[in-house]
Formats: sequence, structure tokens, C-alpha cells
Amino acid sequence: MNVLITGGGGFLGSRLAKALLQRGELGGAAIGRLRLFDAAYPSGHPADPRVEAVTGDLADPDTMARAVGTDTHAVFHLAAVVSGAAEADFDLGMRVNLRGTQLLLEALRRSTVAPRLVFASSLAAFGGALPEVLDDATTPTPQSSYGAQKVLGEYLVADYSRKGYLDGRSLRLPTIVVRPGKPNAAASSFASAIIREPLNGHVAKCPVDPNTEVWLLSPRRAVEAFIHAHEVPASEWPSHRVVNLPGITASVAGMVAALGRVAGAQAAARVVYEPDTRIQAIVRTWPARFRTPRALAMGFNADPDIETVIRGYAAEEGIRP
Amino acid sequence: MNVLITGGGGFLGSRLAKALLQRGELGGAAIGRLRLFDAAYPSGHPADPRVEAVTGDLADPDTMARAVGTDTHAVFHLAAVVSGAAEADFDLGMRVNLRGTQLLLEALRRSTVAPRLVFASSLAAFGGALPEVLDDATTPTPQSSYGAQKVLGEYLVADYSRKGYLDGRSLRLPTIVVRPGKPNAAASSFASAIIREPLNGHVAKCPVDPNTEVWLLSPRRAVEAFIHAHEVPASEWPSHRVVNLPGITASVAGMVAALGRVAGAQAAARVVYEPDTRIQAIVRTWPARFRTPRALAMGFNADPDIETVIRGYAAEEGIRP
Repeated sequence: MNVLITGGGGFLGSRLAKALLQRGELGGAAIGRLRLFDAAYPSGHPADPRVEAVTGDLADPDTMARAVGTDTHAVFHLAAVVSGAAEADFDLGMRVNLRGTQLLLEALRRSTVAPRLVFASSLAAFGGALPEVLDDATTPTPQSSYGAQKVLGEYLVADYSRKGYLDGRSLRLPTIVVRPGKPNAAASSFASAIIREPLNGHVAKCPVDPNTEVWLLSPRRAVEAFIHAHEVPASEWPSHRVVNLPGITASVAGMVAALGRVAGAQAAARVVYEPDTRIQAIVRTWPARFRTPRALAMGFNADPDIETVIRGYAAEEGIRP
Repeated sequence: MNVLITGGGGFLGSRLAKALLQRGELGGAAIGRLRLFDAAYPSGHPADPRVEAVTGDLADPDTMARAVGTDTHAVFHLAAVVSGAAEADFDLGMRVNLRGTQLLLEALRRSTVAPRLVFASSLAAFGGALPEVLDDATTPTPQSSYGAQKVLGEYLVADYSRKGYLDGRSLRLPTIVVRPGKPNAAASSFASAIIREPLNGHVAKCPVDPNTEVWLLSPRRAVEAFIHAHEVPASEWPSHRVVNLPGITASVAGMVAALGRVAGAQAAARVVYEPDTRIQAIVRTWPARFRTPRALAMGFNADPDIETVIRGYAAEEGIRP
């Protein structure tokens, strides 16, 4: 079992890599090779004889062909230019998020081993005038280039799967909370920062209103979802190969209140509201409430509540709130 | 007003060209130049000083840049590899239907005159497990590469429009009936052939069951829809810039019966059923019943009934049934 993670140097990609190495198997087969492909590995990569790191440009055909080879059984395609960056630089987003995905699919089409692909799509597929609660029948109407590129990827994955070139599965991820490390160019970066920074004793500037709601999933559940998505049989996927993942709805105010319960009023007071109209404009188009019967029936799971998410993050990071 | 029609050598493209030349204006501005862009012009092109014909490969960046220039105000993007051909040759369909559309959008992005684009999408956007009657909220789940490529084009047109690079509008066309000329590689070719061939005294082999239903629109209404789509103000389009066009539902048996009423039982008897599982498999995934309140409210119109469609075709072709 040869596995490839694109974006393997990123936060979720490296968490997934660690989980796979720990498990040792995928779909019942031992993992012989775990290849990580990314532009950079800011926090290094696991020192494990099974791990190979490929550095390079996702949108370069030769690099992609080299990373995929013809003997990759399982791919987790997580690499992407994040939402704020793809909106600020349209060409960059199109190049990495669309062209890069196309190159990956073409490389997999040439595989000799019937590859299975899990594609990280996003709730940014949705936007604009939406029902109060979205469900499995809601049509994607992205209001960001990142969201549009994710939807384009989903339709490509579906058609390559229908043609039998690969066995693809797309997951529309909620906003991932809590991300460790530094804030990034994702418009959703604040949703982690307002938990993480106060827990670390720092002030967090929140660019959106306290009543802003977020549809969220913890990193741990996201990693479980990637692995589960690989293992659910093809017959249980709808023909268009995409599901909205379960999540929980939390308002910014609710997240700050939960932070207070976990780490005290002093921590909660470190969240300072500084509205940013550009971020607000993007986040406002994202939905915060879903019914996800399809994903639940397929065995995907949400976190129980935001407080558990915060406590989980603190425990993983060795923070004693 | 400089106008470009891609697929200007095709059946609908050349009909649209004639209609525009006859009108002389678009959106209230006189048409100074009508450029037709196609791989070939099988029936020539109108001898008119306003007409320029560009021959070349839609998927070649330089040819596309030359065809679009920087001074094109209105584009009708009709060029495509048809459904049967795009299914038989995946690379060809991806190259022309997806890459060609991307090149067109990129060329328009470089325009200096705020271009308006009408994109010919298709009911092939829909397929698989569908409600009995589709409506404006039905999510595209294409079951052919042609349909997938049309949906990809719609999402690209929407995002380029959202970014303000152009003012795009996508129309999901019903099956066009009656097409003149020869049968082609479109899986829907039979729907015209069973009317056209008998009217011309020839036998028509019908590859699908008589109870197969088709959602259809006449060429005349389709040309009207293209022009109307250009003229409806941007504010009346939904943010995702796509509408399902109105049409009528006709079964193959109903079409043959109408043919009998128009041209006699002898003509109707020229339709011979010879099932083709490949065609049947594609056509079966296409929906035949829609509610189209959005398009009707925007001023798009269907044909009154199939008999009128057949009589219209006969009159245009100078056939006296």
C-alpha cells in the first residue's frame, strides 16, 4: 500500500501522516510507503523509513507525475492555496487549486494500480443566498474563487471516477478549529486564533462580529474523516462522489464563552474585536448550519461540542488551562 | 459593437450569426464586426462586410487570443465537442470543452471593453438519480463527460463574472429539435433525425424506445434565447449566472405521431426502431421534465408544442409536407 498526501507539509497533512504511520495500515493493507508532497515542510516530516518527502510545485506536470508515479494506491489531496490568498491572487488560486488538481487526476489516470483518492473540498463551496439550514441537496454556489476551485475539483473527481480512471471521494470540510501555529491567509483563520492565542497568553484580534456563526470540525475528527472516506466502499458513495461532513455550529461569542469555561475569564478577555470588512465579506457568505444525514449514515462523525474541541486542543498542545 | 461567436461555423452558431446580421444591433448598439470562430465552416459563412471568419483550434492559446482580441464586446460561446464524441474521446472533450472555455475566459479577462458572454450549457448537466420534475434548485450531477465539462464551464463563468473580469450568463439548453443536415455524434442526434429524415423521404433509425422522453427547444427559440440572454440586465441574473431554459417534453412516440399529423402516416412509418444500448445509456440519464420559473420570469420562452416545432422546421427548409 503506497500512500501519497499532497499538502503533506501542511497542518492537516502532517497530522494525517502521523495518524497513518501510527495505524500502519489503510483499508486492511500495510502501508509500505508514505509519500508527502508539498512546496515546503515548515515543521519537518516524520523520521520514519516509510516516509518519502517530495518538495516542489503542485502545478508543475513533471513534479506531479514524479510524486504520483504509477504505483500509488491511495491519495489524500489536501494541498491548496487557502481562501484569502486565492481571492487576493486569482491566478495563483487557479494555478494551484484547479490546475494542480487536474494534473493530479491526470497522473492518477496513468496509474497501474486502480488508485483511490480522497479530495479535501470545503464548505466554501456554498455561498450567497442560502437556506437557513443546508442539506445534501443544496446546490453549491461559491462566492469565493477558493470555493469555486473546490467545486471544480469535485466535478473533476466525479467524472474521472465515473470514467473508472480512479475511485474518488470528495469531503466538504467544515472550518477546522483549533489550528495550532500562526494565523494564516485563510479567511477562517480567526476561528482558531480566538481560541489558540488566548490559551497561549496572547491577545487575539477577531475580524468578525461576535454573533458570526461558524460550522466547525476539530483537526482530530478531520483526520478521522479522511481515513474513513478512504475506507467507505465505493458503492456507498453517491454518483457525484461528494458529501458535506458533519460539524457543529458555534458563534464567535459561544466560542469565547466556552474558552472562558475552559481557561477562565482572563483568557476570554484576550479576544478583542477589530472588524475587517474584507474578511467579514468572505466569511458572511459561508453557511453555518447543515443537516448531514448522508455523511452520518456513511459513518462520519462530528465533535460533541465546542468545549470538548477546546479541551482537546489544549491537551494535544500540552497546555494546562 | 464587436461580436464573437465561437462555433460560428456550426448549425446554431451560423443561425445565430444570420439573426444578428439581420437585426443589425445588439443591446441597442450597431454591430460593427461579427467574428465567427470555428474549426471549419462546412456551409460557408455569410457574405457580409461585417463578418470575419477565424479558423483554428479552440484549445490553442494564441488562436484564441487572436479571435478574441481586446475589443470584443459580446461573445456567444457555442463551440463544443458534442456529447457522444466527448464520451468516446475523454481527452478531446477536456481539451476543447474545458481548456477551450478556460482560454476564452482568460482572453476576455484581458479585454479593455467589459465583455459580455453568453455560454451554451446543456441539460446534460443533469443525470443519475433525479426528481421526476427538475427545477431551478436541482443540483447538477452530470453522467457524461460532456455534461461535466459544461458544468465546469458554468462555474468558471460564474467566478470570472463575480470577480468582474466579464459579465457572463450560462444557458442550459434543452435538446435542439429539429436540426437540419446529417446525423452527428451527439447522443441526442436521433431526436432530430426521426423528424428530419422522414420529412425528406428517408428512413430514420431510432436508437431509443418510443416511450423515451426528450426535453426540447426549436433552433429558432434557441437563437432567440442567446440574444435575449445577452440583453437581460446583469442584475436579473442569479449570482451563479445560470438558468435552465424553458422547453417542452415530448416522447419519441409523441414526436412520431405529430410527424404523422403534419406529413401523413407514410412519413411516420419511416421511423424504424433499432435500439443502441450506448446511446440509450447516455440519453436515459438526461431529464425530460423541468419547471423553469426563473427563466420564464426573465423572459425566456418555450415552443408551444411539438407539432409547431415540426411545421416550423418544414417551413424553414422549404419542405411541403
